[in-house]
Amino acid sequence: MIEDKNQQRTDLNNLGEFALIDHLTKNFKINHKSTIKGIGDDAAVLDFDKKKIVVTTDLLVEGVHFDLSYTPLKHLGYKSVIVNLSDVFAMNAKATQITVSIAVSNRFPLEALEELYAGIETAASIYNIDVIGGDTTSSTTGLLISVTAIGEVKGDDETYRNGAKPNDLLVITGDLGGAYLGLQVLEREKEVYKVNPNSQPDLEAYTYIIERQLKPEARQDIIKLLSDLEVKPSSMIDISDGLSSEILHLCKQSHVGCDLYEEKLPLDPVVISACEEFNIDSTTVALNGGEDYELLFTISQEDYPKIKANPNLSVIGHIRESEAGMHLVTRADSRIPLKAQGWKNFNN
Amino acid sequence: MIEDKNQQRTDLNNLGEFALIDHLTKNFKINHKSTIKGIGDDAAVLDFDKKKIVVTTDLLVEGVHFDLSYTPLKHLGYKSVIVNLSDVFAMNAKATQITVSIAVSNRFPLEALEELYAGIETAASIYNIDVIGGDTTSSTTGLLISVTAIGEVKGDDETYRNGAKPNDLLVITGDLGGAYLGLQVLEREKEVYKVNPNSQPDLEAYTYIIERQLKPEARQDIIKLLSDLEVKPSSMIDISDGLSSEILHLCKQSHVGCDLYEEKLPLDPVVISACEEFNIDSTTVALNGGEDYELLFTISQEDYPKIKANPNLSVIGHIRESEAGMHLVTRADSRIPLKAQGWKNFNN
Repeated sequence: MIEDKNQQRTDLNNLGEFALIDHLTKNFKINHKSTIKGIGDDAAVLDFDKKKIVVTTDLLVEGVHFDLSYTPLKHLGYKSVIVNLSDVFAMNAKATQITVSIAVSNRFPLEALEELYAGIETAASIYNIDVIGGDTTSSTTGLLISVTAIGEVKGDDETYRNGAKPNDLLVITGDLGGAYLGLQVLEREKEVYKVNPNSQPDLEAYTYIIERQLKPEARQDIIKLLSDLEVKPSSMIDISDGLSSEILHLCKQSHVGCDLYEEKLPLDPVVISACEEFNIDSTTVALNGGEDYELLFTISQEDYPKIKANPNLSVIGHIRESEAGMHLVTRADSRIPLKAQGWKNFNN
Repeated sequence: MIEDKNQQRTDLNNLGEFALIDHLTKNFKINHKSTIKGIGDDAAVLDFDKKKIVVTTDLLVEGVHFDLSYTPLKHLGYKSVIVNLSDVFAMNAKATQITVSIAVSNRFPLEALEELYAGIETAASIYNIDVIGGDTTSSTTGLLISVTAIGEVKGDDETYRNGAKPNDLLVITGDLGGAYLGLQVLEREKEVYKVNPNSQPDLEAYTYIIERQLKPEARQDIIKLLSDLEVKPSSMIDISDGLSSEILHLCKQSHVGCDLYEEKLPLDPVVISACEEFNIDSTTVALNGGEDYELLFTISQEDYPKIKANPNLSVIGHIRESEAGMHLVTRADSRIPLKAQGWKNFNN
């Protein structure tokens, strides 16, 4: 919502496609020995020796997944990498390479794409990822980003959604609902801005939840932690569509049920106070707010001593036989069937 | 331009994202032993044992890369796979897996996406490719398809753009310019249709060039042929932006020059007659018409006897020292510097 009228605007029409790609990718460095050839040929060439690899891809579309009126392009570039890395980590893999493709209309000057790529480069640098290719083309309207991420996994370390067993513990990293509430704050400020463009919002109290929305992180640290603790989850999934939705995926693919305890849901104090302010139930937000990019996993009870002291991990329930169904056990000790109410992009 | 008023239209809003993905991908089969896990988890899991892999990605955008007024969705799905496989083959690799992501507006009914995925499935089946993942989301306007293709390569069989050596022969597969002329025919018929929607175009004479545009093939056969002939090209690239542009890439990355002979350019009789009809110079079309998806490669002169009898391969010139520059040698024996005038999507 802040516009610098004096900023430089270089028209994309003045550059060819190849010159644009060269310009945007010139700072990308190759760090992994598995990257034999990165950007600059018909395809990248990778050598993982005997290791297995994981491959995942996500599209981010303007007007559907992001609103540029309050999303800085640098943050958007960063987030477009993070959402893919989160999927790699959910396989218990080490993220190693990404490709980045963008479709962009002529309303964006070169400087805007430089910001976007600066965010991509920052994420690649922090998470130690090689950018090995991509495609850059024009679009008739907005901005679209398509990222494919590749990771490597040693031996049989990969974790699937289908390995949860009855009596396993259901564990979640970090806390829930922040990204959703950050979005509510940003949407509210957008409405205020429409009415009074000169208003100066004081968003300091919301820093945590706005960052959760605009600049999320992926839990690379947890993959290392689990490895250090010698814990291999029996199943794992990342939280992109909301906890309920992800638990249902995990239970259905594992052919099991579960009990999830309302009182165990990890909530940050900023999330709790924002829920009060917006008059939303915090349990609903924890269950259905998307885009937290935390990891949900199951472990056998034997592994509980290894994780119980860790402040990053919360045991929120346990796996049951399929016949028991999937339930939320409320603070009042009633059992409510879990439903998926997460992001539904086709139902806006 | 043919519309069936009675066709079924199922609104995408009536399906959730997961139900849509399940529906569209239910017929995809896994054939490669390197595919450990395909669609259905946070990421696909692949095991190439000790083989190297190649990775490439391409975006196709409505209104930029295709016009749905004359592009059947099934052909579009097919082509979206082919353009990526062509890049895999240009590395001298065997194509094994793809991911397919689409962004699509609500103006498309489910039946349209079924057509698109039928084309994707047909290409995957013919070229023996496993579809291992993707993303499906809404867009605010048109249709966008993002495909990432993976291939495998044994030992050091991969070919780069930078290996051409002076005195190497410049070889092209198939013939050139057909896809560009097919596009001219389709654009002309679109204009005719706008004036008279009841006109019944007779396009039989143009079948070859229209197919080159709407349903191109990638030269998987050539990779097998080269392997059978025990020829490893010193460099290779696929023809997506036009022969001139690709020769310039290859020569610049190899730090060499070249002489390309106008009289050697392979042209189909349908291309020659369409050039006459449209009053376009056939050499210009062969040099700058894009989307032929043929392979351009260089081989050492020693390998010439192995390839000379093959009707799929034409020697069109030879590599020279860098100082000699890159030239077209015309039928009149004059030397014209080669220029890239291919597709420039930012300059429409």
